[in-house]
Amino acid sequence: MASQQYKDPKLKIFALSSNEKLAAAIAAAVGVDLGEISLSQFADGEIRVNIDESTRGAHVYIVQSTSSPVNDHLMELLITIDALRRASAKTINVVMPYYGYARQDRKAQSREPITAKLVANMLEQAGADRVVALDLHAAQIQGFFDIPVDHLLGAPLLANYFIDNKLFGDDVVVVSPDHGGVTRARKLAEFLKAPIAIVDKRRPRPNVAEVMSIVGDVKDKTAVIIDDMIDTAGTITIAAQALMDRGAKEVYATCTHPVLSGPAIERLQTSVIKKVIVTDTILLPEDKKIDKIEIVSVAQLIAEAIKRIHENRSVSPLFNEKFTIID
Amino acid sequence: MASQQYKDPKLKIFALSSNEKLAAAIAAAVGVDLGEISLSQFADGEIRVNIDESTRGAHVYIVQSTSSPVNDHLMELLITIDALRRASAKTINVVMPYYGYARQDRKAQSREPITAKLVANMLEQAGADRVVALDLHAAQIQGFFDIPVDHLLGAPLLANYFIDNKLFGDDVVVVSPDHGGVTRARKLAEFLKAPIAIVDKRRPRPNVAEVMSIVGDVKDKTAVIIDDMIDTAGTITIAAQALMDRGAKEVYATCTHPVLSGPAIERLQTSVIKKVIVTDTILLPEDKKIDKIEIVSVAQLIAEAIKRIHENRSVSPLFNEKFTIID
Amino acid sequence: MASQQYKDPKLKIFALSSNEKLAAAIAAAVGVDLGEISLSQFADGEIRVNIDESTRGAHVYIVQSTSSPVNDHLMELLITIDALRRASAKTINVVMPYYGYARQDRKAQSREPITAKLVANMLEQAGADRVVALDLHAAQIQGFFDIPVDHLLGAPLLANYFIDNKLFGDDVVVVSPDHGGVTRARKLAEFLKAPIAIVDKRRPRPNVAEVMSIVGDVKDKTAVIIDDMIDTAGTITIAAQALMDRGAKEVYATCTHPVLSGPAIERLQTSVIKKVIVTDTILLPEDKKIDKIEIVSVAQLIAEAIKRIHENRSVSPLFNEKFTIID
Amino acid sequence: MASQQYKDPKLKIFALSSNEKLAAAIAAAVGVDLGEISLSQFADGEIRVNIDESTRGAHVYIVQSTSSPVNDHLMELLITIDALRRASAKTINVVMPYYGYARQDRKAQSREPITAKLVANMLEQAGADRVVALDLHAAQIQGFFDIPVDHLLGAPLLANYFIDNKLFGDDVVVVSPDHGGVTRARKLAEFLKAPIAIVDKRRPRPNVAEVMSIVGDVKDKTAVIIDDMIDTAGTITIAAQALMDRGAKEVYATCTHPVLSGPAIERLQTSVIKKVIVTDTILLPEDKKIDKIEIVSVAQLIAEAIKRIHENRSVSPLFNEKFTIID
Amino acid sequence: MASQQYKDPKLKIFALSSNEKLAAAIAAAVGVDLGEISLSQFADGEIRVNIDESTRGAHVYIVQSTSSPVNDHLMELLITIDALRRASAKTINVVMPYYGYARQDRKAQSREPITAKLVANMLEQAGADRVVALDLHAAQIQGFFDIPVDHLLGAPLLANYFIDNKLFGDDVVVVSPDHGGVTRARKLAEFLKAPIAIVDKRRPRPNVAEVMSIVGDVKDKTAVIIDDMIDTAGTITIAAQALMDRGAKEVYATCTHPVLSGPAIERLQTSVIKKVIVTDTILLPEDKKIDKIEIVSVAQLIAEAIKRIHENRSVSPLFNEKFTIID
Amino acid sequence: MASQQYKDPKLKIFALSSNEKLAAAIAAAVGVDLGEISLSQFADGEIRVNIDESTRGAHVYIVQSTSSPVNDHLMELLITIDALRRASAKTINVVMPYYGYARQDRKAQSREPITAKLVANMLEQAGADRVVALDLHAAQIQGFFDIPVDHLLGAPLLANYFIDNKLFGDDVVVVSPDHGGVTRARKLAEFLKAPIAIVDKRRPRPNVAEVMSIVGDVKDKTAVIIDDMIDTAGTITIAAQALMDRGAKEVYATCTHPVLSGPAIERLQTSVIKKVIVTDTILLPEDKKIDKIEIVSVAQLIAEAIKRIHENRSVSPLFNEKFTIID
Repeated sequence: MASQQYKDPKLKIFALSSNEKLAAAIAAAVGVDLGEISLSQFADGEIRVNIDESTRGAHVYIVQSTSSPVNDHLMELLITIDALRRASAKTINVVMPYYGYARQDRKAQSREPITAKLVANMLEQAGADRVVALDLHAAQIQGFFDIPVDHLLGAPLLANYFIDNKLFGDDVVVVSPDHGGVTRARKLAEFLKAPIAIVDKRRPRPNVAEVMSIVGDVKDKTAVIIDDMIDTAGTITIAAQALMDRGAKEVYATCTHPVLSGPAIERLQTSVIKKVIVTDTILLPEDKKIDKIEIVSVAQLIAEAIKRIHENRSVSPLFNEKFTIID
Repeated sequence: MASQQYKDPKLKIFALSSNEKLAAAIAAAVGVDLGEISLSQFADGEIRVNIDESTRGAHVYIVQSTSSPVNDHLMELLITIDALRRASAKTINVVMPYYGYARQDRKAQSREPITAKLVANMLEQAGADRVVALDLHAAQIQGFFDIPVDHLLGAPLLANYFIDNKLFGDDVVVVSPDHGGVTRARKLAEFLKAPIAIVDKRRPRPNVAEVMSIVGDVKDKTAVIIDDMIDTAGTITIAAQALMDRGAKEVYATCTHPVLSGPAIERLQTSVIKKVIVTDTILLPEDKKIDKIEIVSVAQLIAEAIKRIHENRSVSPLFNEKFTIID
Repeated sequence: MASQQYKDPKLKIFALSSNEKLAAAIAAAVGVDLGEISLSQFADGEIRVNIDESTRGAHVYIVQSTSSPVNDHLMELLITIDALRRASAKTINVVMPYYGYARQDRKAQSREPITAKLVANMLEQAGADRVVALDLHAAQIQGFFDIPVDHLLGAPLLANYFIDNKLFGDDVVVVSPDHGGVTRARKLAEFLKAPIAIVDKRRPRPNVAEVMSIVGDVKDKTAVIIDDMIDTAGTITIAAQALMDRGAKEVYATCTHPVLSGPAIERLQTSVIKKVIVTDTILLPEDKKIDKIEIVSVAQLIAEAIKRIHENRSVSPLFNEKFTIID
Repeated sequence: MASQQYKDPKLKIFALSSNEKLAAAIAAAVGVDLGEISLSQFADGEIRVNIDESTRGAHVYIVQSTSSPVNDHLMELLITIDALRRASAKTINVVMPYYGYARQDRKAQSREPITAKLVANMLEQAGADRVVALDLHAAQIQGFFDIPVDHLLGAPLLANYFIDNKLFGDDVVVVSPDHGGVTRARKLAEFLKAPIAIVDKRRPRPNVAEVMSIVGDVKDKTAVIIDDMIDTAGTITIAAQALMDRGAKEVYATCTHPVLSGPAIERLQTSVIKKVIVTDTILLPEDKKIDKIEIVSVAQLIAEAIKRIHENRSVSPLFNEKFTIID
Repeated sequence: MASQQYKDPKLKIFALSSNEKLAAAIAAAVGVDLGEISLSQFADGEIRVNIDESTRGAHVYIVQSTSSPVNDHLMELLITIDALRRASAKTINVVMPYYGYARQDRKAQSREPITAKLVANMLEQAGADRVVALDLHAAQIQGFFDIPVDHLLGAPLLANYFIDNKLFGDDVVVVSPDHGGVTRARKLAEFLKAPIAIVDKRRPRPNVAEVMSIVGDVKDKTAVIIDDMIDTAGTITIAAQALMDRGAKEVYATCTHPVLSGPAIERLQTSVIKKVIVTDTILLPEDKKIDKIEIVSVAQLIAEAIKRIHENRSVSPLFNEKFTIID
Repeated sequence: MASQQYKDPKLKIFALSSNEKLAAAIAAAVGVDLGEISLSQFADGEIRVNIDESTRGAHVYIVQSTSSPVNDHLMELLITIDALRRASAKTINVVMPYYGYARQDRKAQSREPITAKLVANMLEQAGADRVVALDLHAAQIQGFFDIPVDHLLGAPLLANYFIDNKLFGDDVVVVSPDHGGVTRARKLAEFLKAPIAIVDKRRPRPNVAEVMSIVGDVKDKTAVIIDDMIDTAGTITIAAQALMDRGAKEVYATCTHPVLSGPAIERLQTSVIKKVIVTDTILLPEDKKIDKIEIVSVAQLIAEAIKRIHENRSVSPLFNEKFTIID
């Protein structure tokens, strides 16, 4: 039972399977109990959803990260939207702290799908009225939707960690691990009042080993590598080593979404990286919680967004305070 | 390489992961090689599809049963459709020998989803131009689509098994294992010129054990229980025992879709059922292939349907021959 | 003027031509006056609809059974929806006690339409926001819609008649007149704590007379044949005779929707059926009101559903009380 | 059997119930047999459509005027489109010589429907790919569709009648029976090289009798009143009398669509009108065929349009020949 | 700051670039301040829109005439709708005092667009929930939309001018400048209790000079030519001369929409027309304000409509008072 | 007249107003004459489009860059698509060498539109079947569409210029003028086998002058700044100066789209930049053709793509040859 009950019973928050812990923290921060819902699988793996309380006329927020197992989490989300629409919910707001398939956002080669758009189409088709997302892999994914997307930014939360630990200023360099992430690095660098550098990987010609160089000055600095997500941690751990080789004093890594699949934990553990700062958009199972990893919660940020959305107050003021949100 | 090449190179058949063996048999029967496609998963479980040959202007048939793991198979199918649409395929024909989530075809209780409709919407939204299905759980699922659905019937193939084994006439009784399957039982009974019976399960009142009775005469007869699918085999094995208890001589079970999840194989193995006749719409892994199970292939039926569809010939003549198809 | 005025003037109920008597009863039970609307036909038969009071911002419920003349009633409904949408109604709720064309819910033969889906598409396209229906011919028709469908069940009302008349228990047998209606029979049987039987019609081979047998025990019992609708009454009267021939003590017939077209009244009148229990979803004209027919009203059931929908209260509690509704 | 068979078997023409005679004439002019289709009604009035020959891959033209009984004819058309779409027709071309509900093309008063748009939406939703229409009540109805509309004009055919009968030049005056039809009158007047006049009806103030005057000179002239349709013939017969009262020598009436409902035939018979020239877009039953009425057939015009559409030849050249068509 | 503040802060009115003066007058009449919005163009001409106050949950009215430069004004409108939708406005109401491209409302020749429908589709696609328009070129344009269109009529406002100046009765004749505008002339004539006449232009045969005659009596009368818009003023000034030539005493011109492009002002200035009465749906720049032109404001009419729409009160009562509105 | 006529008359290419020169070059390279189309503006600025040859059944390619005046060019494109759809073109392929509004591809601040998505929606809604684009500002714009997008890349053409002029290898550095363009710089650097550098602009804190530094080594090298477009040339000319200040030997600038608005030409002329290499996706008017600007044509690239699309041949082989195309 939430200690401080939110005033409007028409606001309901439901947690799906991917990250019940975050959903519970969001609900507590909003001041509501999580809605009652039964989620299970039939013997053959088909998902069974039953909403166990009336949602007629309610403004429903579904909290679901489409993290691994991505297809199960995505279908669970779509099926729940379908059930809510048929159960006469007034608005269906999809809170996706982590948006799976976001990297498939364009055709990089011939005859590839654009799965991030397919997912957007499916959410709209199923009946979603709004999406609340956090640090989308590409900001353009907002445009994959015709419904409102409230796009929250995790960078300030991550920045706070470094500021609290006195890691800012000219002794620090923020590093983008690839060519596409320089804007993200620049933004964190601005919070930390630090310069930037880029890891410049390229393959001189086909079937020749990839060459990695560092563009920018890292010598004797604390390097902070930032990405939107860390998946297998291959790129980031090799980059960290390269930074140390070029004379960096120490290396931190940070990202919003700790995907951490396959060999990620072992790679991070054995790497030169000192600390890995992540958020809780994706639930970290106990066996992945190593000492190097520090978790910053996005629950307050999302809860504040939900309240402002529900009350028709602008979400943009959060932008200039401790949270960063684009309305 | 197919020995007899089909005349029109614009007809292409692609196999997805669920049942490559059936797809290969269909392609061989049509006289084409399977199209080249790369299917894999990234480390975090996201599906990666790349079509490895040009499909511009092609009439593509994708063979995929959305059997277990249903969400992975369904997403793989949707992503492939998306890739084909963006790759300028002329028509995208989805061949689903088994249509997962078909049992969720109505709201049986408050606030349930209708997932079978959600699946239909997603297939249309992704870009499917046609669906070829076999023995849908409810024929009304055809109406979940606004695109053409060619609905093939497996009953004649199953009937042939019994006729070939001299199991027909008044010494046989075709049994529906529940109230909703009587029409299906009647249809098989007509092929076998046999009477029907129904297993009548009911719960006298809440929290009281279910009572099972048999409506119809089974004494000294060979009982053939028919269903569209056998999932955990609980109902069917109990029904078989009840039939033996009422004096049936022997019991066969038959269905189109061998879902066979959880305890199904063990239940069938230890049951009084003599033989279980199924089709290959769902791939039976080696460890589920027990002696009691006989498999009838639908490859010829589907291949013939694909050829007729591609050549704009009526699919209905198959109905009155050895295959049963509704155009 | 309703004696007890409903509190919210934004709830408006309009009666179209098919069943003004039922609509009036519903409105009275809700506590509102019927909305003012002019319905007429031009000399050439085109329907003219004019809504005679403002509906801006109103939650409108249109009561219309698409009974015979089905095309006129359906077009009148669609035209009214169009007028309401253009007149800025806030929500348009279509109450269809009887859903015409429901039997055309699948392709039973080659090149047939699925008219029940066409009707669903037309209702959504015209602007309906919700459908309230009663005993749909197939529950899957709910899935023909992407808008909420509140599906009410008439069986408990019919059951009450038999219970009130002491017709329940082992001396009664509930009979399905065909293979597809066994589930419906089972449900009524559960209310009456009675066993079931099935009329098993089949044609041994083409161009040979149809054979009718009874599966299940009816001897010395009061047989209650149940169907969702009685159309020409051919099947049901022949079945009744067959039941008497097999030793039934007496035969009742019951259905939700009294279509009663063509020779129906004469057949019922001259049949062995003792009583026919129906509801008032379809208006029975005076010349069809024979003594054998008893009418149970669904007005209270629908009125209660409308109030609960309008007040965003769950419709499902009705399920376990005297009404049966699926939310 | 058509004596001259059209070259491409993929072109198929189906006649629905409204005007089989015109459809047959069109098919004969194209050089094809009418497609086989079963049209009937169930006992309760529901329409039953079954297409009795394969239409897979065919370019189908459905000939149906949505004349009285308009709702039955419209539903028959929509159901046939649904059946054809599900039966894999390649394109579905709707030939509507008369488009019912065309007069409901705008909101003339508060809370009216725009039924002509509703009909357009329904045709598109059901699956129509193209509409071929003739003399739409308002040319703007073309814009109610997003699919191509080939809009043929009947005026030249009607003009030919008058030219053949030496009725042209300054002794003739073409009269619009109301304010909205002056453009139509001007067009016919141009063919006949004649001046125009307008019947000017107005109501000086509410609840005062309507006053009719003639704007323009009609004295000693042969007046030809033209409208797109004659419905109850009230306006046109009164106008004819007024023209005679102002000194007209004689009065002809002409229109494309002979709706002729209610008292129309009697009014025309007893009126001062000498001849009524109409086309066969609407089938005139035998009992309405009075001597005053002359029928000009549009079969050749429509047949030529179908051939040009099917062969991807421009339809516009017809414009400057004996037919008038807007491509 | 409005002196009398409107009660509901959820009603917001935004002015786009075309006619800020009218928008300001409307806002003042409603009693609200105009919403804050930044409109500008980048150096390359791309439009930049930023809404400078929160619109979450607001009912927004955008005032924009799509007058010249029509494409810029239209795109500005569409982009603003897109921004509002993404900014979670509750309803987006488009107030278009002048609807550009309205004359392209049908295919007058082969292979023409129907741009007025394209515009309607674009407005709906962008996210408009309602259109408020004034004197649409053709009333059928209402049917180009599936959302509600509130169609206001300017004629009574124009009529008031003439009544105030004692120009009514039999000494006046209302003249339609072409065949399509007679209904509009008749409506004004009814207000002025005057007869009508028509300018009848025609081209006897191709490549021969157009002939202009007047149908109806204008001798010694004050002629009032009415059209929905005056564009280049060619037709109307020639018609005025013709009326003087036929003995008219004096000629006034009036229209709702003063497009006045190209040579219009010079033509009007040098014409025989005494006064031109227009409304302010299109902003008249200072250099076009000649003495002959009198402007009647539609601000009160539109403001009243907005208030009634927002308060869910019927808009139709305005019809019989000093304003004319079709709800 | 094209000297070598393309074999299939069903392929038609139409040039709209933005870049007729490029369209003509494309048509010549394909081997067809440009289709006949009339483009003009009415006196009030409304666009008038009439297609002057039949397009029934044709595969039409419309060549239009939505360059300045962007709204006029965009509306002209949309209106032409509408006309073609209504004129029964079989497929409508939109060739947009330059896609205007592409920079508005996400919400960078609160309450901004995503105009690039609005444009995509409008193109699909109007009836486009395919888009052929070149160097989209963000590759994710492909995902704004559900129709196929053939995305061609201009980088190889630009690279050829530098290779032909011996500007490659370690004496060259490719420079991204901002954080978002590093991937583009890396791609060109790979062609030129050169290292990269980044211009790192940032504002230390609000209301403080922006600081520009260079990340990477440029001393004594030939710097090639690459961007997808040069608009006002402010950024690029300042960056060029900064590069010279850091010791670069000389500076080249290159981009695909020469927007060159406002002060661009003067800035480039007076800058330290030696040469500006652009393509002809946007027509350069004579007064902007300064000696420093070199133009590389994309006509052959687009023509080859059109031919491959029309012939259903894969477009991807172009990727590894002299052209770069993503199929």
